Amino acid sequence: MRNRIFSGMRPTGSLHIGHLSVLQNWAALQDEYECYFGIVDWHALTTGYEDKLDLKALIREMALDWLSVGIDPEKSAVFIQSQVKEHAELHLLFSMFTPISWLERVPTYKDQLQQLGNEGKDLHTYGFLGYPLLQAADILVYKAKAVPVGEDQIPHIELCREVGRRFNYLYGNVFPEPQALIGKVPLLPGVDGRKMSKSYNNAISLTASTEEINIRVKQMITDPERLRKDDPGHPEVCVVSKFHHIYTPDVKRVEEECCAGKIGCVACKKYLAENIDKVLAPYRERRLFWDEDGKVEKVLQEGAEKARITAAATMAEVRSALGI
Amino acid sequence: MRNRIFSGMRPTGSLHIGHLSVLQNWAALQDEYECYFGIVDWHALTTGYEDKLDLKALIREMALDWLSVGIDPEKSAVFIQSQVKEHAELHLLFSMFTPISWLERVPTYKDQLQQLGNEGKDLHTYGFLGYPLLQAADILVYKAKAVPVGEDQIPHIELCREVGRRFNYLYGNVFPEPQALIGKVPLLPGVDGRKMSKSYNNAISLTASTEEINIRVKQMITDPERLRKDDPGHPEVCVVSKFHHIYTPDVKRVEEECCAGKIGCVACKKYLAENIDKVLAPYRERRLFWDEDGKVEKVLQEGAEKARITAAATMAEVRSALGI
Repeated sequence: MRNRIFSGMRPTGSLHIGHLSVLQNWAALQDEYECYFGIVDWHALTTGYEDKLDLKALIREMALDWLSVGIDPEKSAVFIQSQVKEHAELHLLFSMFTPISWLERVPTYKDQLQQLGNEGKDLHTYGFLGYPLLQAADILVYKAKAVPVGEDQIPHIELCREVGRRFNYLYGNVFPEPQALIGKVPLLPGVDGRKMSKSYNNAISLTASTEEINIRVKQMITDPERLRKDDPGHPEVCVVSKFHHIYTPDVKRVEEECCAGKIGCVACKKYLAENIDKVLAPYRERRLFWDEDGKVEKVLQEGAEKARITAAATMAEVRSALGI
Repeated sequence: MRNRIFSGMRPTGSLHIGHLSVLQNWAALQDEYECYFGIVDWHALTTGYEDKLDLKALIREMALDWLSVGIDPEKSAVFIQSQVKEHAELHLLFSMFTPISWLERVPTYKDQLQQLGNEGKDLHTYGFLGYPLLQAADILVYKAKAVPVGEDQIPHIELCREVGRRFNYLYGNVFPEPQALIGKVPLLPGVDGRKMSKSYNNAISLTASTEEINIRVKQMITDPERLRKDDPGHPEVCVVSKFHHIYTPDVKRVEEECCAGKIGCVACKKYLAENIDKVLAPYRERRLFWDEDGKVEKVLQEGAEKARITAAATMAEVRSALGI
């Protein structure tokens, strides 16, 4: 039996190419692990309970994003968190023996309270405090042994391990201790050099067409000191260069030519746009395949059924350990 | 359509006759209301997560107690909370928009933290803080319009109303505002004059036999100044008298005879024991009926199915309001 993985994303908006490496990482893990990938809509409500998100549409877009990048429903369970009630049940049971102080001490808690507070959101809610506990339930309900996450999530995985250990100590050994699988996630800036974000209108969407890619790459900020084509460039201050490092196999040659003033920014950008398009084109094509009537819905339904079977088996063990 | 009621009890120990008036009150409400009576085992875990309770046995005893007193599964849904997952789901959804301060401000919260702290229980847990929120979900998942409770629970019903109002305000009108139905619950002391409690060994069990009732009534503390049978008695300081007020139709005559020194304590106790036995005897008999193989289990299974249908209908409305 292969080890299990759980990971999830909140359906709060469409993905851009800054998210791509995470999804590519998931796709690569599918052969080694039994994977459960959840679109965690309850978590989206935690931070966005007042946002009137069109969750149904956002969930469908996210599923399409995942499938187009190569998450394979034949290999992995792709599902919506709120369709597997066992997450809520386990979260409730964990709440009984989880000290409030454990949750208050999670480093992201106070940071996010403040950050989102600055954005006008009051998240002094019971559910926001319990966010990492719901994550612990998400992971442990599948007895996942590994969780592909970014570095910022390490404290959450540590909490998850603590919660599982406490359950095992109080009621008997049910849960494994999941490990964080830290994927290499290169930080790509937006075309204007700030953080890439849909709300800054500086992102390249995962679904961008060839033309949209061209437009976005043309907007990328380059070395301001390079006024003429044969001025030597400084790739380290150039947004285009950061993308070449991800999308261009012969990035070294491009950099050398830039530093030597042998390639102009227009040609350099054209080459980058071609290389980004080479990566996104097959995704766009696969997306068309999945976007046909009912296919996504079927994937999510079957994924939920598969997830429920595993989650229900864990919950049977949990209830038996608790004597209920 | 009749209005709905929800009420519940934690299966933390067998019931005694101090609980009888609550159950009789429930039984009397069954014709007027559509009743949902839950054995709230998740709540038992909230305060007793370390207690290694034999919940299965306690739940069965509680169901027998209810049925023997006249809770009628033909009229009412009698079920185990943990078998209706919708309670956990609604609790989680409510958590998203419920300020922590609302929960911290519930008057019973700090009181109970301290009281149970004195008994050696550390209840600074996430689940104990969320206790009244789970109660709100218990009630609102059935859209109950009324909740038979004791006076100490009024702040919890008030919180429940606030939570329902906030949901309605944020997402659209789904929930009614349940009212507390305060039942007349006479406070019966234990045979030693202290609070009646199984742990003080001063209680008369709901299942007490004629002989056990005799023994307990003989142990009741009487007027200490009445040394001889024809001394005038003082019913106001006598435990026996408090029970006569509940169990003896001609209590006035008994009190007059006591005050006049015309009835001795032995005869007075014998008469009380007979009157208590008259009330409990039919309960004992009905209990024998329900205690046969599989009957309780069938009641709880069918009760959970009935509860689930109602709860699932509410959750469909809730999810539609939330757009998930």
